Amino acid sequence: MRTYLDCLPCFLSQALRAARIATDDEALIKRVLDEVGRMLGDLPLESTPPESGRRIYQKVGEITGNRDPFRVLKGEGTREALALYPSLKGRVEASSDRLATAVRLAIAGNVIDFGPDRAFDLEREIEMTLENTPAIWDYPAFRDALSGAREILYIGDNAGECVFDRILIEELKRPVIYAVREVPVINDATYKDAVQAGIDQVATIVSSGTDAPGTILHTCSSEFQKLYHQAECIISKGQGNYEALSSERRPIFFLLKAKCRVIADDIGVQEGDIVLKMI
Amino acid sequence: MRTYLDCLPCFLSQALRAARIATDDEALIKRVLDEVGRMLGDLPLESTPPESGRRIYQKVGEITGNRDPFRVLKGEGTREALALYPSLKGRVEASSDRLATAVRLAIAGNVIDFGPDRAFDLEREIEMTLENTPAIWDYPAFRDALSGAREILYIGDNAGECVFDRILIEELKRPVIYAVREVPVINDATYKDAVQAGIDQVATIVSSGTDAPGTILHTCSSEFQKLYHQAECIISKGQGNYEALSSERRPIFFLLKAKCRVIADDIGVQEGDIVLKMI
Repeated sequence: MRTYLDCLPCFLSQALRAARIATDDEALIKRVLDEVGRMLGDLPLESTPPESGRRIYQKVGEITGNRDPFRVLKGEGTREALALYPSLKGRVEASSDRLATAVRLAIAGNVIDFGPDRAFDLEREIEMTLENTPAIWDYPAFRDALSGAREILYIGDNAGECVFDRILIEELKRPVIYAVREVPVINDATYKDAVQAGIDQVATIVSSGTDAPGTILHTCSSEFQKLYHQAECIISKGQGNYEALSSERRPIFFLLKAKCRVIADDIGVQEGDIVLKMI
Repeated sequence: MRTYLDCLPCFLSQALRAARIATDDEALIKRVLDEVGRMLGDLPLESTPPESGRRIYQKVGEITGNRDPFRVLKGEGTREALALYPSLKGRVEASSDRLATAVRLAIAGNVIDFGPDRAFDLEREIEMTLENTPAIWDYPAFRDALSGAREILYIGDNAGECVFDRILIEELKRPVIYAVREVPVINDATYKDAVQAGIDQVATIVSSGTDAPGTILHTCSSEFQKLYHQAECIISKGQGNYEALSSERRPIFFLLKAKCRVIADDIGVQEGDIVLKMI
């Protein structure tokens, strides 16, 4: 997905939010805004938003000296999700279509995101995602793709959300490779976060090698690129991965909640809609 | 009022909105964002937001070549408000405290603002403003100040809103000098807009001389500054005038709706609250 004009003020808002979490020093925060403001002219609309996001969050780290401002929030998100795990499992077990319920829960977990919007109510979000009709629901194709695949590449998004991914992985009944970011960026899941969520018990965790808040292939390791190009079925979670991969020609299923109007428009749905979309 | 960190991303969003109204050329809109982004570092937090807003909207005009992008929207706002005028007058006439109702209506009209937020529903806003309890309501002091003043200086804000100001002016029962911006900036009222709203029938319209979206005194004409310093009672409408005048030591009554969190926090109310506040 290209960068839209509306992304530019959002980049600045995100820089402000991250800088505030990284430091209390107003002068440093102002410097972040000044420098990110100056950077906007160098961000081509042709590049994907996570390419710009990568540079912006690097700048926040560079100026504030805090390379992992979301560390504490990530831990809290995972603990909150783990506390819900038994009841979420119960919902899957009680449902008439376990896989479909697990997909919806995995999408519900995508609300744990400190990038575009920090405010969310996880339990309410779960209820809404289970009740509302998805705007795009390529579920039959998804089920077919799963049954034909020997192994699934599952590209994770945010820490905390991993717990919800684990529930879906447990329903896939196939070997799963779970890809995380190489280093902390926003609240995206790294190896450590995935382990904390218990993903290591249900899948093989690999790093994609990227330091961007989305799977921008040219920033990924050659090992990951090989995995990606060989994968028979790919599950991509969240906006950042959608933004990075939406123009690809691989068997990808995007699971996400459209948390901003720009992405909703790009997909052709309404803001707030939930989506299971085959590429 | 100083500029807060949250104002900086908002400046960029406002520039985007204004640029889009000014032109359809995406390359020009991108240039506006790039240049406004670069300007952020030169906007001191000590200056008031309309001082920065003035430079930003000048930049939008300079790059897009459209110095009055809100012209059509201003005309529509005024026509919409004029259509409501008879029913608004009826509400004042039917109320037990005509002045208080007129004050509330004048505040309701403040929602006609294309700066911080373009989306509003005027009739719904009127109902809410008449029903809800104002967060600050220095009405007894306001009534007293009116009764002791020979003349009132009324500083207008947005076009369209002038129609609502007219209703309040008709209840003041005092000679009123109504100040407008010298040139178009956002959808702020100029002389022409005030006349279109019929203000010339109830007050003497003067230009403050400013080209800023707020009454920044050092940008005002010496004639206006004289009027301002001699005024026994000043009514200041809207956020831009509050931002410019909130640190003054003059007998000012601010009538506004707190349309953003930054201003709400500065005043000490909630976003969306309505306010009649004595300085």
